[in-house]
Amino acid sequence: MNPLDGLIEALKRLPGVGQKSAQRMAYHLLQHDRDGARSLAAALQAAAEQVGHCQRCHTFSESALCDICADTSRDASLLCVVESPADQAALERSNSYKGYYFVLLGRVSPLDGVGVHQIGAAELLARAAEAGVAEVILATSFTAEGEATAHVLGEALRSRGIRATRLARGVPVGSELEYVDLGTIAHALVDRR
Amino acid sequence: MNPLDGLIEALKRLPGVGQKSAQRMAYHLLQHDRDGARSLAAALQAAAEQVGHCQRCHTFSESALCDICADTSRDASLLCVVESPADQAALERSNSYKGYYFVLLGRVSPLDGVGVHQIGAAELLARAAEAGVAEVILATSFTAEGEATAHVLGEALRSRGIRATRLARGVPVGSELEYVDLGTIAHALVDRR
Repeated sequence: MNPLDGLIEALKRLPGVGQKSAQRMAYHLLQHDRDGARSLAAALQAAAEQVGHCQRCHTFSESALCDICADTSRDASLLCVVESPADQAALERSNSYKGYYFVLLGRVSPLDGVGVHQIGAAELLARAAEAGVAEVILATSFTAEGEATAHVLGEALRSRGIRATRLARGVPVGSELEYVDLGTIAHALVDRR
Repeated sequence: MNPLDGLIEALKRLPGVGQKSAQRMAYHLLQHDRDGARSLAAALQAAAEQVGHCQRCHTFSESALCDICADTSRDASLLCVVESPADQAALERSNSYKGYYFVLLGRVSPLDGVGVHQIGAAELLARAAEAGVAEVILATSFTAEGEATAHVLGEALRSRGIRATRLARGVPVGSELEYVDLGTIAHALVDRR
């Protein structure tokens, strides 16, 4: 395979990139941005070599403990379970949570053959059983797969006597009721306070 | 910048990739496909170092002459002007053209500051003036920018006494007239034969 076809094949391994996008990316890099190609190569190499997982919360980290787990000033009684480092980052940006995290790096998806074992359920149960953890907040997505993940983990946690809660469902801030979908309104009514 | 953020920044230089897609790609590579990250790094490096331009037709090539330009059995009286190696590949797959190519690697786009000089018009005119070239087929896209490119190049070629033609516009093979857009039908009527 010549280097151009090799590059197109390699780009197709990126999620959401097919033959046409890969071609466009390869042509763009070679024609307009060879520096970009070289810096992307270096960044990929560096990330693949250096980025590991935090021993404690499983998020991506170059060191044994990520910055959040290494921060002893946080509230050790709270453990928030999220699907991805991106979700963790969103929660951090909201500036309303001061506990620790556990990052599943995935969600249960039977159709793709992803069960609770692949997303680190055993590690979560061990982490949640540590002294000091009073509540596990299940902050997986409100999609079918995220809900299933929360359900399975919640059952497992409760059967071990650990308190498990779920993020509140309801009307998003700033939205007009007229345009909110019916499922959300129904949940907001049931969970009214 | 840590390696993960560095990778996300580098991925954002790919065309059509924004913050969210770059995050998703980086997380996917680190979580599920580190081999993919390494092979993409190697492919980028190899392509950036080894892929140059064919001296004659300007397409991407590792050698001084691309395979097509090095093939002396083709029809030297025909020169087909295309916008990209992808367009050239589409023409080759149609198996209906046996002449040589000239690859512009771009099209005129005044809004993006891309004029005829940036797409290699001078090199095309020199190539078209070579002995033996009887006809230049302008096979740029049938978009506003592609049409403008064909117009400018056609005028320049004709003013030098070189015959310039354009790909035929008309109803695509296999389409029902009812669903063909009106501009195409109008062109097919005017160009009827």
